[in-house]
Amino acid sequence: MIETPSLVDQHCHGVLRTELGLGTFEAQLGRGEGPPAPGTTFFDTQTGFAVRRWCPPLIGLEPHCPPARYLARRRELGVLEAGRLLLRGSGITTYLVDTGLPGDLTGPGELASAGAADAHEIVRLELLAEQVADTSGTVDSFLANLAESVHGAANGAVAFTSVAVPRGRRALAAEPPGPGEVRGAVGRWLAGRQVGGELTDPVLLRHLLWIAVASGLPLQLHAGAADPEGSFEDFARATAGLGTDLVLLGTYPHHRAAAHLAGVFPHVYADLGSALVRTGARAAAVLAEILELAPFGKLLFSSGAQGLPELHVVGAHLFREALGRALGSWVADGAWSLTDAQRVAGLIAAGNAERVYGLAEG
Amino acid sequence: MIETPSLVDQHCHGVLRTELGLGTFEAQLGRGEGPPAPGTTFFDTQTGFAVRRWCPPLIGLEPHCPPARYLARRRELGVLEAGRLLLRGSGITTYLVDTGLPGDLTGPGELASAGAADAHEIVRLELLAEQVADTSGTVDSFLANLAESVHGAANGAVAFTSVAVPRGRRALAAEPPGPGEVRGAVGRWLAGRQVGGELTDPVLLRHLLWIAVASGLPLQLHAGAADPEGSFEDFARATAGLGTDLVLLGTYPHHRAAAHLAGVFPHVYADLGSALVRTGARAAAVLAEILELAPFGKLLFSSGAQGLPELHVVGAHLFREALGRALGSWVADGAWSLTDAQRVAGLIAAGNAERVYGLAEG
Amino acid sequence: MIETPSLVDQHCHGVLRTELGLGTFEAQLGRGEGPPAPGTTFFDTQTGFAVRRWCPPLIGLEPHCPPARYLARRRELGVLEAGRLLLRGSGITTYLVDTGLPGDLTGPGELASAGAADAHEIVRLELLAEQVADTSGTVDSFLANLAESVHGAANGAVAFTSVAVPRGRRALAAEPPGPGEVRGAVGRWLAGRQVGGELTDPVLLRHLLWIAVASGLPLQLHAGAADPEGSFEDFARATAGLGTDLVLLGTYPHHRAAAHLAGVFPHVYADLGSALVRTGARAAAVLAEILELAPFGKLLFSSGAQGLPELHVVGAHLFREALGRALGSWVADGAWSLTDAQRVAGLIAAGNAERVYGLAEG
Repeated sequence: MIETPSLVDQHCHGVLRTELGLGTFEAQLGRGEGPPAPGTTFFDTQTGFAVRRWCPPLIGLEPHCPPARYLARRRELGVLEAGRLLLRGSGITTYLVDTGLPGDLTGPGELASAGAADAHEIVRLELLAEQVADTSGTVDSFLANLAESVHGAANGAVAFTSVAVPRGRRALAAEPPGPGEVRGAVGRWLAGRQVGGELTDPVLLRHLLWIAVASGLPLQLHAGAADPEGSFEDFARATAGLGTDLVLLGTYPHHRAAAHLAGVFPHVYADLGSALVRTGARAAAVLAEILELAPFGKLLFSSGAQGLPELHVVGAHLFREALGRALGSWVADGAWSLTDAQRVAGLIAAGNAERVYGLAEG
Repeated sequence: MIETPSLVDQHCHGVLRTELGLGTFEAQLGRGEGPPAPGTTFFDTQTGFAVRRWCPPLIGLEPHCPPARYLARRRELGVLEAGRLLLRGSGITTYLVDTGLPGDLTGPGELASAGAADAHEIVRLELLAEQVADTSGTVDSFLANLAESVHGAANGAVAFTSVAVPRGRRALAAEPPGPGEVRGAVGRWLAGRQVGGELTDPVLLRHLLWIAVASGLPLQLHAGAADPEGSFEDFARATAGLGTDLVLLGTYPHHRAAAHLAGVFPHVYADLGSALVRTGARAAAVLAEILELAPFGKLLFSSGAQGLPELHVVGAHLFREALGRALGSWVADGAWSLTDAQRVAGLIAAGNAERVYGLAEG
Repeated sequence: MIETPSLVDQHCHGVLRTELGLGTFEAQLGRGEGPPAPGTTFFDTQTGFAVRRWCPPLIGLEPHCPPARYLARRRELGVLEAGRLLLRGSGITTYLVDTGLPGDLTGPGELASAGAADAHEIVRLELLAEQVADTSGTVDSFLANLAESVHGAANGAVAFTSVAVPRGRRALAAEPPGPGEVRGAVGRWLAGRQVGGELTDPVLLRHLLWIAVASGLPLQLHAGAADPEGSFEDFARATAGLGTDLVLLGTYPHHRAAAHLAGVFPHVYADLGSALVRTGARAAAVLAEILELAPFGKLLFSSGAQGLPELHVVGAHLFREALGRALGSWVADGAWSLTDAQRVAGLIAAGNAERVYGLAEG
């Protein structure tokens, strides 16, 4: 009843280019700091069950067939063809691709081609700074090159993304660090760092966030496990009215607090991604919770997928089913009109993202 | 099936006396720190949809008609007649009115008359202190006048309410500030303040709370966005056994923690207000969550409405529908008996408030 | 449709040996810091309603009969016979019994005999230390006796349990206290303490936790009202890979955060106990929330019951009904296969506990 002909995946990553065995595939389903516990498997999760529900039919198998059988068929098709079948079966029409993850992942162009869809890049701030550090010898050259890189990225990409919060919550201070503070932190970082070294200095993370805010491009913030109310509220207040939108990613199980912030601050938006993919059969219930406080113009679909095209599929299918179920039940109860429900579905599936990222303009 | 012939709105405000255009009406639907984001509207929220569901039929229109049409009909009737039709259509039989908001709002008497209902006053502590400060020249006269005003208010009102928590969480300390500390804070506040200036000093906010606790009148505490467990638990423990009831307002999305505290402390109660009005089609689900831990004798209905009689209507209709749906489903499952469900509905709708505020005594 | 022929109650206590009147029975239903508020009763809670639903039929009465009638019939049967009928009607096949509560409660042997089931002991660390302190005159003898007692308990019991978190959150530091720090704390505690005095010193609580971690026996941690993410994450990271499993108890209303941790750390498990018993008619909804993030191999059923065999009954019945409803609805929707649902039900009901506590080995 509720249709979403366009579907913008506003935050995802590429897919692995290599063939996967049962163990390497399973490892992509885990979200943790280690392997599955002895006697358990990451297939026994809502995500695992959702993959087994939605993906086998796209490669000619029965839903819920055993993982080993699914993987065998996947290898038989080859990683390229399996990827094409899966991505094209997702119904996603535009991918916004965060290219800041390590690993042999496809870029936006390949994802677009495999999925017969559009794709745009999202630039991860911390990786950008690390790449600049790899080629800058002095504080001055680092700062000049960083400014240039951010400027360049802002021209080619549709958004910035940052993992400053999971790397150190102090990064979300209500004002940028002073120039001297930044120079000192750059100097210490460059002096102690080896090529490829990760950026975790809170002053530099903070500096990056404020550079991004100044760029005017939407800024996607990974919440880690932080409660957005405690962590984001001061930053949101400090950046209100500056013309840059903030999009909160990965806020589950604090998604209601994220929805609250999206209602309080005009420039704050909430992502649906991992809240749906990780909760599987519960996606409609979780979506309904997010729809309590958030204005309907402030919510953005994503799959949050990385590594496996199966996760793009699951994200898209769970979203559409959840939306149909939640909004459909409110229409059936008379709480919403059908016209409103269809309009809101279109906003969350694509319209809000098109407006926030200027996708229709290009 | 579940009837609530009496309905005590245990925390609301008056309604605006002026005619409202589309923009000024929409602004009353927002709860945030700014206008709606560009390209969005506060009508696209659960509250907006709930208003469009329940209110048009009360003024002769179809549910879910467009906002512009609803506003045109409202202006045609005039603000007074529209208010009468709406308030009388809410089913609320008693209003407890927090008179501490600025703006041209009706008082308890006008609300009672327009709604053909009873009404009693709730006095907001911070406004009381600000009014006393406006007419007190010295620390001594301020303290004497404040004591007198609180005493007078305690005789005429049914409860105190406080916004100390949103204004500064340190206000909820586990003991009152010492007399010297209070005198110092009053002196500094009076010296620096202009007529009408807002009270935000944490020592004075704390002093006010403890004066109110000493009065014996129930004290309604706005939670702001605070998690009640972190903020309220020590205060609740410190005020246990003193004979004054505490009512936690606006705890969503931490309503389960508020329900937990209502189960732990005999003198702590939980309000349902904004949890229902702001979540619209989700009100039954949210109500069911509150009903997990809270003893049924510790929950109090309210609309939390301010400015628009539409919000009183929505609060009351959502509550009754949510109660019927949640309790009705438990009766249908055999988890509750129908007799118990009807009794509990009566407690939450009116009985608990009548007991806590002594409404039947008057 | 979903069957659970074996049911391991992985955390409960014994039942009272004395006959109970209406007031003493009601007091066991409360979870708070005081009696019910004036004009209210702890029977008017989800737990009270669940007891009245499930227990009367086990002693020959109608569901939802009045409390006074139920108590009269219970006294007529006598506490022993009522206990036998109730425990045998619960369907629990193995009890893991935390013997660390005060009061005249039955031990594992009596519970097994009354319930025609198996039973094993869980040793509460704080009580063990208090008992050792009662008979140790010096720091050296205390430390030697404590090590011996923990070693002995580890041979006879299936798990340790700790209330260190509710007694003082600093106990969950990411490393054990140093030997000098421990000796100092023991000296101060022994010097100031009277026989039977409770252990609340954060250094000693921390020392106990790390002794238990070193024992290799699973360690059950009571969460109190703490959000597990804030409190447990560092401790979980510090104890990862040491070979000792941690089981988080009583995490509601933060059960989603507990489920998240169970997904992140291989050695962290989440208990279902009080989340179900205290929420009654809402147990299926709460269980579904826990099943969002937690891998299905990391969840453990318990009743969390103490004092009343009615609570063992309610825990077991609510769990089976909730499991049937949640998993059954996902099977009906096609989100899960029936085979998977039955397998997962068996894991949560018994299989996970048998694996974690080595129950099948004995």
